[in-house]
Amino acid sequence: MRTEIRLSGRGGQGLILAGIVVAEACGVYEDKQVVQTQSYGPEARGGASRAEVIISDGQIRYPQAYDPDILVALSQPAFDRFAPKIKKSGLIFADSFYVHTDRKDVVLMPFSETARNEIGREVVTNVVMLGALAAVTGIVKLESLKKALRHRVRSAFLDLNLRAVDAGYKLGKEIWKKRSS
Amino acid sequence: MRTEIRLSGRGGQGLILAGIVVAEACGVYEDKQVVQTQSYGPEARGGASRAEVIISDGQIRYPQAYDPDILVALSQPAFDRFAPKIKKSGLIFADSFYVHTDRKDVVLMPFSETARNEIGREVVTNVVMLGALAAVTGIVKLESLKKALRHRVRSAFLDLNLRAVDAGYKLGKEIWKKRSS
Repeated sequence: MRTEIRLSGRGGQGLILAGIVVAEACGVYEDKQVVQTQSYGPEARGGASRAEVIISDGQIRYPQAYDPDILVALSQPAFDRFAPKIKKSGLIFADSFYVHTDRKDVVLMPFSETARNEIGREVVTNVVMLGALAAVTGIVKLESLKKALRHRVRSAFLDLNLRAVDAGYKLGKEIWKKRSS
Repeated sequence: MRTEIRLSGRGGQGLILAGIVVAEACGVYEDKQVVQTQSYGPEARGGASRAEVIISDGQIRYPQAYDPDILVALSQPAFDRFAPKIKKSGLIFADSFYVHTDRKDVVLMPFSETARNEIGREVVTNVVMLGALAAVTGIVKLESLKKALRHRVRSAFLDLNLRAVDAGYKLGKEIWKKRSS
């Protein structure tokens, strides 16, 4: 069982930290093998940002996401670039404020609006997104995400981040319930 | 031209941040392709930590360091585990306080002592190490490291980190001069 996740957006949206947190959550606090990767090149110099996480029950032989199961897009350019490459059975989550699309299979979620309105800080959009991802996909437990946040986030910002991951988890559960009903 | 770097030590020594900073320095501020990776699994649960960086002039097809050119070891267990796997032409840098070895080919450097004694904070050992790596190997420019630090490090800690990278660069130059003479 191998799951590939691509987190994409623009620089400054905290996608690398998000990748590290979910990787640590699964690889240190759950019994998984994880490889987390960022690639830099011409596209990074254009302001795009992405982080990839591969989670597996067994050894990971090829450590790059060549066919992601899950795509998160927090910006329109990231969505336009990566959404066409997701496999048919894949899941796409996009920020409903920054991404516009007619595709019905894309799950639009108010990550950034939840961060702004419920937590009061857009900077935790990445952590709201992780909470929602945990709720919808079950690839990582909320409790493992919190352990990784406690390890990775400076203490002055920890409370903010823990509230953000809880808000994201709640958001994920609600939206998934609506889509499934 | 492809260079593989493995940064290893124990959890809490800031190896992932070091990997991200050098990757961003080369991939965003210099004209390189870079893939930066961390792997989590049973060994991470044992407290070991490592980050890998692959730097290339061209496209990176295989994104894992299978045969590192450069190893940095900041702890004895990391040294014992990874040093035997470095190719003959490879370079090994180890912290002279935490690593003991009889191997004459290993470059022992007082990264942690420089951080403690010159900067007053052992927590910047990782950044001292990056400065020394830049000085000795030339794989990245000091100025690019500083740009990446300005981007990655919170402003309250930036001055500390810039002093650490300068101290490491100076240390690298001095030690390399002694070895070469």
